[in-house]
Amino acid sequence: MTTTPERAAERDLAYDVFSRACPSRGTLEHVTGRWGALTLGALYDGSFRFNELRRRVDGVSEKMLSQTLHALERDGLVHREAHPTNPPRVDYELTELGRGVAERLMALIEFVEGRMDDVLAARGRYDETRGGR
Amino acid sequence: MTTTPERAAERDLAYDVFSRACPSRGTLEHVTGRWGALTLGALYDGSFRFNELRRRVDGVSEKMLSQTLHALERDGLVHREAHPTNPPRVDYELTELGRGVAERLMALIEFVEGRMDDVLAARGRYDETRGGR
Repeated sequence: MTTTPERAAERDLAYDVFSRACPSRGTLEHVTGRWGALTLGALYDGSFRFNELRRRVDGVSEKMLSQTLHALERDGLVHREAHPTNPPRVDYELTELGRGVAERLMALIEFVEGRMDDVLAARGRYDETRGGR
Repeated sequence: MTTTPERAAERDLAYDVFSRACPSRGTLEHVTGRWGALTLGALYDGSFRFNELRRRVDGVSEKMLSQTLHALERDGLVHREAHPTNPPRVDYELTELGRGVAERLMALIEFVEGRMDDVLAARGRYDETRGGR
């Protein structure tokens, strides 16, 4: 891990997601996109075959999961291992880099899951005062 | 914070982003969506007016920023403060809940920014062996 808690200073790195032209913005979108985040989160538990992953990431289509895995593999976050068995078996697992991303993503996911009662209460208050708009 | 490092056990909470019907999935999408993540990240630095935020979140349209702020406000992550000045002034800032989300999001963003050299190197290798597909 190359970052430190000194955020303001650290943010003056070569890469800055706040700049629209920075390539880090695209990678952030791959890892936080709807299916990217859930796929990395699922792989945090270990190695999966394609169909196992599809069951875990409830609601993803075959096409979207395939695209998501390709993008994550290209960014060096997921390793695809084709075993020369008959029938051939393909496993997906996190790389060291992908594990670092998934760890931070899971911290975010668990925080959100753990505070959903507060989120739903806030929504109720908002909809009451704003008339549901 | 209600989560602990015992991930597998903790994930058996009432809320589970991996289930498509769980409301936590929608909230995860609000906070990790393209503009949601950058808006929360920007507000992590303090309170902003609408136009200041728009400059910070490079590339966002007025309409998208407005929609993003409404969704984050409704989820209880952002507080909107309208000051009775002339002309009226509206400030946006994180709530305590929003700060908890933004902290974890910034840890993710900084990790990705800090490892972009590795990501770009992986992309180069992938495109070479796959012929750029």
